Amino acid sequence: MEKFDIHILGCGSALPTTRHNATSQVINLRDKLYMIDCGEGTQTQFRRAQLSFSRLNHIFISHLHGDHCFGLIGLISTFGLLGRTATLHVHSFPELEEVMRPQLDFFCDGMPYDVEFHPFSHGCTDIIYEDRSVSVQAFPLSHRVPCCGFVFQEKPTAAHIRREMIDFYGIPFSQIARIKNGEDYVTPEGDVISNSRLTLPAAPPRKYVYCSDTRFNPNNVQYVKGADLLFHEATFAESEVARAAQTFHSTARQAAEMARLSGVKQLLIGHFSARYTDERILLDEAREVFPSTRLAEEGRVFQL
Amino acid sequence: MEKFDIHILGCGSALPTTRHNATSQVINLRDKLYMIDCGEGTQTQFRRAQLSFSRLNHIFISHLHGDHCFGLIGLISTFGLLGRTATLHVHSFPELEEVMRPQLDFFCDGMPYDVEFHPFSHGCTDIIYEDRSVSVQAFPLSHRVPCCGFVFQEKPTAAHIRREMIDFYGIPFSQIARIKNGEDYVTPEGDVISNSRLTLPAAPPRKYVYCSDTRFNPNNVQYVKGADLLFHEATFAESEVARAAQTFHSTARQAAEMARLSGVKQLLIGHFSARYTDERILLDEAREVFPSTRLAEEGRVFQL
Repeated sequence: MEKFDIHILGCGSALPTTRHNATSQVINLRDKLYMIDCGEGTQTQFRRAQLSFSRLNHIFISHLHGDHCFGLIGLISTFGLLGRTATLHVHSFPELEEVMRPQLDFFCDGMPYDVEFHPFSHGCTDIIYEDRSVSVQAFPLSHRVPCCGFVFQEKPTAAHIRREMIDFYGIPFSQIARIKNGEDYVTPEGDVISNSRLTLPAAPPRKYVYCSDTRFNPNNVQYVKGADLLFHEATFAESEVARAAQTFHSTARQAAEMARLSGVKQLLIGHFSARYTDERILLDEAREVFPSTRLAEEGRVFQL
Repeated sequence: MEKFDIHILGCGSALPTTRHNATSQVINLRDKLYMIDCGEGTQTQFRRAQLSFSRLNHIFISHLHGDHCFGLIGLISTFGLLGRTATLHVHSFPELEEVMRPQLDFFCDGMPYDVEFHPFSHGCTDIIYEDRSVSVQAFPLSHRVPCCGFVFQEKPTAAHIRREMIDFYGIPFSQIARIKNGEDYVTPEGDVISNSRLTLPAAPPRKYVYCSDTRFNPNNVQYVKGADLLFHEATFAESEVARAAQTFHSTARQAAEMARLSGVKQLLIGHFSARYTDERILLDEAREVFPSTRLAEEGRVFQL
């Protein structure tokens, strides 16, 4: 199966600590990297994860709180110093470009590459980006400021050719691409060999959903449902449920409830409040509702 | 002797690595903290050094390259989240406020404390700040953009009272403050007891000089001379002397030459290029010229 890995670069909340970095993740899908959020210190965490800067071309920012975007200017500057030439694409709300433009003009003048912003609206539910491997859909979350989640939906891969059947029917190489794309094979004699005899179905496309800072909101189920892996913020334990509502965050139990309602395969929780020196309380509370829950942690990689 | 400690929070150069953070230092002088430069990740390094945020009221930024100031916005935001009420004073060139103002307006609106900028001109050689403990003088360096060094000159402390002499002459408590300030004591009988019999001289005031990014420039000797400790950038080894000149940086040997010409007591080198995985080559080259040289390193504290 081709790579679909989630690298956790930071999973703390607003106050960075010596235990947790500010929020950032990198998705490695078929060796292309996509970054979600970019808190302070992300570039160093990226190096620590031994990822390749040159494979990163798209960054998605969920909202404009500092712990989700203060690392952007440093990352962009470093790319310039390293001689990057490929355009870097940044997908977010229009305000991100407005607030970054003066910094880019001042600190990044004369860089050998371009930063291109791709703004989308606050309530956007569109596919905001797609390529051969993936489509990325935004959807609105319920936070103190405009905030969105992202659905990373893998594109279907071609069927696997059954080599022994190709040999059996003596099918010429020139036909392989067509068969991979689902066509039947017609022999010189006019016999139709059905595609299903010549191929094995590809692995089903995978789906990763990132729920950034948000209050629990059942309306999100429509976007989350069927995910192979759901990342959901879990800032607080259940004892702080009132504080979670007040600050537009979720408890671990609420994250698990979202996973359960949406029928996802696995749940990954993060964005931990600095008050927890051991997040097992969050894990335990989530697992009571949704057993297949795991804790995010800097440096860990979760495979879909 | 009262504290005059230099905490190294970051001593890498423009490209942060997993070994070195971007530039920042904190001076602890008599339990008041003064920060010099604030590269990305400084707030986390500050926590790691177990320093107290509430004792930090003044930040000095040497120049507007990202590796010396990208950590400011995160530090300022965090202070807001922690409920700080005391004004934070930022001393730098006027351009710093210009580039930070849009960020502060966007991200830090409604914080419970003020950030006050104290701009000074590019070629400034004035004392830009002073309080009861210290005066801070700026002086121009030779970098690709306007850049300055800082002289931290401790204020003289009061003389030490010789308690046994006070008892011997039966001097009342009400006279102690005067004697500390250098006055003689006149007995009720009219005899003059000279101050020098009643006190021991205070420790001589100490001087710390910070030479940020700069090409070697003998003109700086006038500011550096007589320092107890000189921090000088040493980005390159001698094999890269041409590159050092071209990029307006110094070699370790040039840093040592500045220390020798200025007659300082100790030299501390930092701002190491990412190309050196072991800085001993820099230390060795500096020590050939100025034996009393030490290597900066994250987490280390150097006492004056």
